[in-house]
Amino acid sequence: MKKESRRKFIGNLGKASLAGGVMVKPAAAAKAGRELKKRFIHHVYFWLKNPNSAADKAKLIEGLRKLSAVKTIQQFSIGQPADTRREVIESSYALSWFTFFKNGKDQASYQVDPIHLKFVEDYSHLWSKVIVYDTVDA
Amino acid sequence: MKKESRRKFIGNLGKASLAGGVMVKPAAAAKAGRELKKRFIHHVYFWLKNPNSAADKAKLIEGLRKLSAVKTIQQFSIGQPADTRREVIESSYALSWFTFFKNGKDQASYQVDPIHLKFVEDYSHLWSKVIVYDTVDA
Repeated sequence: MKKESRRKFIGNLGKASLAGGVMVKPAAAAKAGRELKKRFIHHVYFWLKNPNSAADKAKLIEGLRKLSAVKTIQQFSIGQPADTRREVIESSYALSWFTFFKNGKDQASYQVDPIHLKFVEDYSHLWSKVIVYDTVDA
Repeated sequence: MKKESRRKFIGNLGKASLAGGVMVKPAAAAKAGRELKKRFIHHVYFWLKNPNSAADKAKLIEGLRKLSAVKTIQQFSIGQPADTRREVIESSYALSWFTFFKNGKDQASYQVDPIHLKFVEDYSHLWSKVIVYDTVDA
């Protein structure tokens, strides 16, 4: 390839990338590992008896942090509603307890783990409502 | 340390690890990275207009898979209710769409991304109800 043609070719490549709206990386590489598979998601939402009590909320966070010691929990996140507000968004809960388990068996063992039972015993007086969503790969 | 004492010392270390019931790794190291922080979790639950239609469910999964192409989605999972059943567990939905974003700004851009708008246009006729939970670190 002559120098001029090569420059033009590279120039066109650049334009092609821009035209695609994106990037040089192949899509497959960019997407590697983005899909979480073979996980059991146990996602719990808590409503407090005293929704305006910062102390009760802090107390429940303390409890969830202790609860995170359960060995079968692969990963977890303690959350609260973001500031998004649309008709379909549920944002009246106080705290979210998000956990990944390897499988349903591990999640079942977590339910009867002494750490979990102690958590319910010590902190359940704080909440008025709990909704749980357990999901596996569709 | 004399050779003999050193051997004994190492031997005792081994016993100590076994006595703990687990491993050589310190607990802190074993837990490193288990807490997911600084993530925006956007978790959506879909109820189908035809809850018993496997075809409609497959169609919506197809749509979610296309939707996963949105660049700001860091990770995602397409789920369905696990076989757990307790009073607090919501298991009447058909599909769960779990996504991690870097932050609220990225999630906001996802809402108006052409891929997302096309998803709503092409697939919203399939669902009767949607509940969204957006959470950030508590």
